[in-house]
Amino acid sequence: MASPKEILVTHPLRVRYGETDQMGVVYHANYFVWFDDARDALLREAGIRLDALESAGYRFPVVEASCRYLRSARYGEEVLVRAHLQPEKVARMRFRFEVHGAAGLRLLATGTSLSVLTDAHGKLLLRAPPAMDQALAALLAKQRGPTETELQP
Amino acid sequence: MASPKEILVTHPLRVRYGETDQMGVVYHANYFVWFDDARDALLREAGIRLDALESAGYRFPVVEASCRYLRSARYGEEVLVRAHLQPEKVARMRFRFEVHGAAGLRLLATGTSLSVLTDAHGKLLLRAPPAMDQALAALLAKQRGPTETELQP
Amino acid sequence: MASPKEILVTHPLRVRYGETDQMGVVYHANYFVWFDDARDALLREAGIRLDALESAGYRFPVVEASCRYLRSARYGEEVLVRAHLQPEKVARMRFRFEVHGAAGLRLLATGTSLSVLTDAHGKLLLRAPPAMDQALAALLAKQRGPTETELQP
Amino acid sequence: MASPKEILVTHPLRVRYGETDQMGVVYHANYFVWFDDARDALLREAGIRLDALESAGYRFPVVEASCRYLRSARYGEEVLVRAHLQPEKVARMRFRFEVHGAAGLRLLATGTSLSVLTDAHGKLLLRAPPAMDQALAALLAKQRGPTETELQP
Repeated sequence: MASPKEILVTHPLRVRYGETDQMGVVYHANYFVWFDDARDALLREAGIRLDALESAGYRFPVVEASCRYLRSARYGEEVLVRAHLQPEKVARMRFRFEVHGAAGLRLLATGTSLSVLTDAHGKLLLRAPPAMDQALAALLAKQRGPTETELQP
Repeated sequence: MASPKEILVTHPLRVRYGETDQMGVVYHANYFVWFDDARDALLREAGIRLDALESAGYRFPVVEASCRYLRSARYGEEVLVRAHLQPEKVARMRFRFEVHGAAGLRLLATGTSLSVLTDAHGKLLLRAPPAMDQALAALLAKQRGPTETELQP
Repeated sequence: MASPKEILVTHPLRVRYGETDQMGVVYHANYFVWFDDARDALLREAGIRLDALESAGYRFPVVEASCRYLRSARYGEEVLVRAHLQPEKVARMRFRFEVHGAAGLRLLATGTSLSVLTDAHGKLLLRAPPAMDQALAALLAKQRGPTETELQP
Repeated sequence: MASPKEILVTHPLRVRYGETDQMGVVYHANYFVWFDDARDALLREAGIRLDALESAGYRFPVVEASCRYLRSARYGEEVLVRAHLQPEKVARMRFRFEVHGAAGLRLLATGTSLSVLTDAHGKLLLRAPPAMDQALAALLAKQRGPTETELQP
């Protein structure tokens, strides 16, 4: 469930042969690639393009990442990666992820990643470009639908 | 620093071209592959072979992993991945990692992984095979050197 | 273009951040992962599931692969990987691939892979299971549409 | 065997867990990563650093790659990747590779890759920087040892 203050985007993908290991399941490091995929789907949904951000001289490195593995994902399986983001006032984004298998019913893994905004030399920025904040606020508003206050006459 | 109750093994590696991303540094998910490499170097040092373990019907999946990224690793750089392990009585191993760059002087990242022992069907085992416990105990003893008590006449 | 004797399946995918390297484009080895993806999409289209094949004791290793890189693929780009297969009488499949970027208009790369069928011990099989041959023949017939002969009254 | 006109550098590596797939052997696309590793070891041996080359505004993309897989490489195995290069007058390098397992006795795979030199915009260069040609010539001369003519009094 997404809280009312959270953006939630669901990113579907199919497990690749090359993502498995000799245990016969997805190699654990690949979940972090999936997390990135879901993060980027969320940003795209908000109209934020990482490549444009980089062309404008920003960098958006991952500075923390974690994953808990509950069940195995298998080759060919269609999984859903849900990315949650609660927009912050500072230039960082803390994402939460859930990986669901088999029609979204089996929770396979949960995880987090923290990305920060820096300049091209890696210097941490305190504030994101206003357009970025606005894009996230707009997506959040769109996902929440009208609030109780807004619905009152 | 390794505590006296910890095994410490240092695994050197050189950053591969294919491990970089378009930010010009190592893609963050690849640190988890390095952690595995260092974990396996530690097990090998103890005489434990994952492939033999698997042939014997065991599995040793990673069930948790995390990383904090402090500085970037770059293509061609020689990094040292230090794996720390404090042997436990139960059939799991919680590793701590540090990634050092440039002759071991720059701390690039820290991380953890938790591996558990299961049977071939993924059923969690409470106890490791005694040979495995003994192998770790022997490596720990070897690394600690004689204790004060043992040195007394 | 697919020849009338070829199966053609087009597999769309979006370039992942983790697939780029420090040249700012997709790392060349990743095209081989995409080729596999397109191969598997073709097999799926024919109703052939690699995981079922493996459960039945078969293996389907790639024994040759090649790629020519013409233009770079970039992060976030939607590419189409076209897999061509001309079914053979023997238990092997030689795939041809084309990778197209930007709405299918730019040819980024061409490639091949050869997969063979073996038993679980890696022994080469001469003939595929009849169901596999039939599945490919059926997909080929479906893609070709009615032939001239078949259209004659 | 290296021909007298070829540079030969042998690059050792140990198979990583994350390099395997569910067939229980190394996933085929990873051989191309190994080829790159061996290519870079050869360049390093000649004193050529790809990162310095890139800082100087050059790019060195792979434009062709191929591999034939003869036997499987397994987790934990120490393999040797031999890179062969016959220096050319034009700004390209065609590498041949052999992957040997188990103490160099089992030939696992052979392959090729072709890298070209371009400027930062991808424009093909006809000639390499003289220092690069000289570095390769010097390594070739060093590996060949004195020629018959040179040995004559």
